[in-house]
Amino acid sequence: MNNLCHLLSIDYPISQAGMVWVSGGKLAAASAEAGILGVIGAGSMKPELLAHHIAKARALTAHPERLAVNVPLLYEKTKEQLELSIAAGIRTVITSAGSPKTYTSWLKAQGCTVIHVTSSPLLAKKCEDAGCDAVIAEGFEAGGHNGREEITTLALVPQVVDAVKIPVIAAGGIGDGRGIAAVMCLGAAGAQLGTRFVATVESSAHENFKQAILSSGPGSTMLMMKSLVPVRLYKNKFYEDVKRLEEQGAGPADLEALLGHGRAKKGMLDGDLVEGEIEIGQISALVRDIPSVRDLVARLMREQRAALPASGRFF
Amino acid sequence: MNNLCHLLSIDYPISQAGMVWVSGGKLAAASAEAGILGVIGAGSMKPELLAHHIAKARALTAHPERLAVNVPLLYEKTKEQLELSIAAGIRTVITSAGSPKTYTSWLKAQGCTVIHVTSSPLLAKKCEDAGCDAVIAEGFEAGGHNGREEITTLALVPQVVDAVKIPVIAAGGIGDGRGIAAVMCLGAAGAQLGTRFVATVESSAHENFKQAILSSGPGSTMLMMKSLVPVRLYKNKFYEDVKRLEEQGAGPADLEALLGHGRAKKGMLDGDLVEGEIEIGQISALVRDIPSVRDLVARLMREQRAALPASGRFF
Repeated sequence: MNNLCHLLSIDYPISQAGMVWVSGGKLAAASAEAGILGVIGAGSMKPELLAHHIAKARALTAHPERLAVNVPLLYEKTKEQLELSIAAGIRTVITSAGSPKTYTSWLKAQGCTVIHVTSSPLLAKKCEDAGCDAVIAEGFEAGGHNGREEITTLALVPQVVDAVKIPVIAAGGIGDGRGIAAVMCLGAAGAQLGTRFVATVESSAHENFKQAILSSGPGSTMLMMKSLVPVRLYKNKFYEDVKRLEEQGAGPADLEALLGHGRAKKGMLDGDLVEGEIEIGQISALVRDIPSVRDLVARLMREQRAALPASGRFF
Repeated sequence: MNNLCHLLSIDYPISQAGMVWVSGGKLAAASAEAGILGVIGAGSMKPELLAHHIAKARALTAHPERLAVNVPLLYEKTKEQLELSIAAGIRTVITSAGSPKTYTSWLKAQGCTVIHVTSSPLLAKKCEDAGCDAVIAEGFEAGGHNGREEITTLALVPQVVDAVKIPVIAAGGIGDGRGIAAVMCLGAAGAQLGTRFVATVESSAHENFKQAILSSGPGSTMLMMKSLVPVRLYKNKFYEDVKRLEEQGAGPADLEALLGHGRAKKGMLDGDLVEGEIEIGQISALVRDIPSVRDLVARLMREQRAALPASGRFF
């Protein structure tokens, strides 16, 4: 138990990342039951679907206080998502992809714990100034949407720790307990893992998507679409199409046209590994099984302790 | 003292990186005196200059056994550089930018300890198979030349540790003792620091270059020239020129023409921050002073111990 555990009412300083099409009520509830933060990824959900997943998660866990929603601040229904989450009993809200000034004061007034996702120490300071209770510092190696300055987790976390007094949760490139121990040495109060939780029994990722993670290797992902919104993609045919367009000098409009509608759902929920968009992080290369969330969390904690020298000194 | 310390006859598991125009005999000797591996960067040196720097280093330290040369395997005088280094008493050789098969057996037969630089776990295994005694696993955030798969240090190191039995030295994104503790949690036996050692009293970097590091921030570098050889650059006018060319769809020949001859010397040794090429890593954002190597190493060790929980458990 450290400060972050107390803040989030969790046993272990781990957050299961909110991920589009992957982290619904089932995964979030399993995470809460396992003693960590269970995050419902609202990015891909219409308000009524989000309400359904929150209700489902609350029905599946005796620890609803460990449930959170991740709401990217870039859709027109953001306010509606936030209001219904609070009405449904959610008290921890993770915001991303927008300014921490927009909703933090209002969320705090509703009694929420507020965490904002940042890819730079400058934005981290703005989060603290806006009243956020913690920040998630996410590096270049993370799956999905990503910062423009390409700062890696190892370089980012100590800078963010030096910039703010609130707890810092490290994200990006963490797939086992060694990574958790490493980011805590950098000063993080905890770790957020995404890709590792895609390959769990309780994740709603399509089985094909889970298998793609298991068979991925060191060079299986790349940060693409930088002229639109940088996103780390799994290298499949869709990635090759994006690559070809970019090599031809395509602009944001061409990329948006290729992306179209429903590419991410097609890949991650429907399991189309050819035409679908698959968002995973570099650490997929370390993921080699599909455990239950309970078994995974127990293993992460064992590995984290084993990664540290028993004496508190390496040599 | 761990296995790596015994292998390299050093007191602390740290390597001061070999860097073109920066790490001559003076810096390497200061590192050896401070108890770490002192590496002369042969990449920018003609054979006679390399011989001069080795002789200078040996004259300046009572620990010549802690001196090494870093030889990129891409110049026509590589064999000559290696032969004269051995003749001058060097017994630790770091090779990079080529196949570990080319010289490792020969270097071993000359009685050398051989370390090869890798940016992927697959190449790391080839290094072990070729007979290398250790590998340096260098991530995307490092300054200078860089791997094509853009794998970050946090994602790379555990993969390399899992792939080989020989000691792994982590490099890229390490600027203080927190970073050293972090990579050792990942399973590294030690850490190599480059950018941090540019900003020391004994480095031969131009004062302007040292000041550029001190005033750099989170987004001050970017990986460029991917169609030629990926290299992480400090964002100055030369970087802007490269960026403009690349946005216009320039190929390798255009980039080589812009690069011309002497760009790196102009930037890093002569201190031309406008037209010169300046190679630094992302962690420059954490570097805020110019200590002596002795003081820096003592501080790194203090910080490394402080980053670990005294109990061997974080919570």
